[in-house]
Amino acid sequence: MKIVSFRHGEKESFGVVINDGIVDLKKKLNNEYSDLKTFLEKGNLEDINIDVNDVQYPLDDVSLLPVIPNPEKIVCVGLNYHAHVEECGETETATPVIFFRYPSSQIGHEENLILPKESSQLDFEGEIAVVIGKSGRRISVEDAYNHIAGYSCYNDGSVRDWQLRTSQWGPGKNFDGTGGFGPWLVTRDEIKDGEVLSLETRVNGEVMQSSTTNLLIFSIPKLISFISNFTTLKPGDVIVTGTPGGVGLKREPQFFLKNGDVVEIEVSKVGTLRNTVKAE
Amino acid sequence: MKIVSFRHGEKESFGVVINDGIVDLKKKLNNEYSDLKTFLEKGNLEDINIDVNDVQYPLDDVSLLPVIPNPEKIVCVGLNYHAHVEECGETETATPVIFFRYPSSQIGHEENLILPKESSQLDFEGEIAVVIGKSGRRISVEDAYNHIAGYSCYNDGSVRDWQLRTSQWGPGKNFDGTGGFGPWLVTRDEIKDGEVLSLETRVNGEVMQSSTTNLLIFSIPKLISFISNFTTLKPGDVIVTGTPGGVGLKREPQFFLKNGDVVEIEVSKVGTLRNTVKAE
Repeated sequence: MKIVSFRHGEKESFGVVINDGIVDLKKKLNNEYSDLKTFLEKGNLEDINIDVNDVQYPLDDVSLLPVIPNPEKIVCVGLNYHAHVEECGETETATPVIFFRYPSSQIGHEENLILPKESSQLDFEGEIAVVIGKSGRRISVEDAYNHIAGYSCYNDGSVRDWQLRTSQWGPGKNFDGTGGFGPWLVTRDEIKDGEVLSLETRVNGEVMQSSTTNLLIFSIPKLISFISNFTTLKPGDVIVTGTPGGVGLKREPQFFLKNGDVVEIEVSKVGTLRNTVKAE
Repeated sequence: MKIVSFRHGEKESFGVVINDGIVDLKKKLNNEYSDLKTFLEKGNLEDINIDVNDVQYPLDDVSLLPVIPNPEKIVCVGLNYHAHVEECGETETATPVIFFRYPSSQIGHEENLILPKESSQLDFEGEIAVVIGKSGRRISVEDAYNHIAGYSCYNDGSVRDWQLRTSQWGPGKNFDGTGGFGPWLVTRDEIKDGEVLSLETRVNGEVMQSSTTNLLIFSIPKLISFISNFTTLKPGDVIVTGTPGGVGLKREPQFFLKNGDVVEIEVSKVGTLRNTVKAE
């Protein structure tokens, strides 16, 4: 199932994509759940009993929001592919490198990716996002998949000069309008646990990053287990699993995004997130 | 005015402290605002017209929650007092060092500060917290005070070995139950803009940190202005302004918190946040 958060007219809702249409789950479930995060927390994906006759809007009539517009936590993983560790001149760490994004930095599919006026160093980072479906603390690696609601594409858009001003990356990872998240959540039942997914980032159609999840240094279950040592993972929390080699900052010559560039992040079995850069 | 978030019986609410009692604002305002964050966003502090006759509960009958239990953003500032920069062997940076906490890591006044079973290196960091009252992006230094709702005490409790495993501090700053925030918000009208505040951290009554806000490297208005370059600050957002010298990690011999230790953070004109360490 493909689940989206969306705006239709003035109203924000969430629903299921069937072919080129949307079933408005918030409406269908009588406004019992205010948003997708709340539904993941209190509802049950398996109870959704819908078909093509329930479609209310064409997909083209809605604006997609970040898959989870209001997660309590967005946990980002740095330096999690060998090729990216190498291009950064770093060494592998014994435990994952963890940093954070604020929900307010996120944009949905087809929303503009903002090149802020403070910088000319906006860079892409194509990643696979994991959305948590079930709460847990100190989750074992073996049990980790049971805490996953599904998968999506993420562009961990980075303002490099602001990221690298001090030892801590936060500012450059949190400019408003830089974190692409979409187009939808593909539920766990559609992807076999541990199945190798491919990840590709394109700018104006040119492939900039290409990798597969078997090349992750810390696998998705290991990330869930590690992160849940310090924090209780909750439904709607997002883990952004790391970017492969090929980022603009480390290319020769360096490459940064400019007004009008189209960035696509494609994850196999999930779909393609697309955002166009808009310079302020 | 002293404003608190609290639990009374099974219900969470927010209100004003008058002497030793609490006026339940959520009830008084007919549940129009679900929590203090929503009140700061949509209500108006100046419209509160209450007196001692409105007190509904004795302060002793409620459990205080983190002042803002659910901020969208908790922005922490590192290395913002000369004495702490020196004890860490670091050099001053041209812009503030910024990192983040999740709301789920917070505790209220008199709640237990959790020493997790994963570590024996729980450390205190006494700080002054600024709570945002008015939204803004790219706020000027001159206008910054107008965006402040008020001030509180914060213990940016840090699990040092988990903080320093990789270059990014996140995990050690986000263990559940380690971020003390309280006891209340003292509204901006009670503290003159720019007035020098003193900050003291005590463990079992012994003074471990003592400083004043004129020793901040980046002043409160400069922090607000800097942070709002990259993110839109919103009502209820929290800025934790940095810790002075004297942290346990850098003492000789090193000092870490153990079960039963009582940590107090006192800020002049605000009050004292107190938490007792509980080892898991």
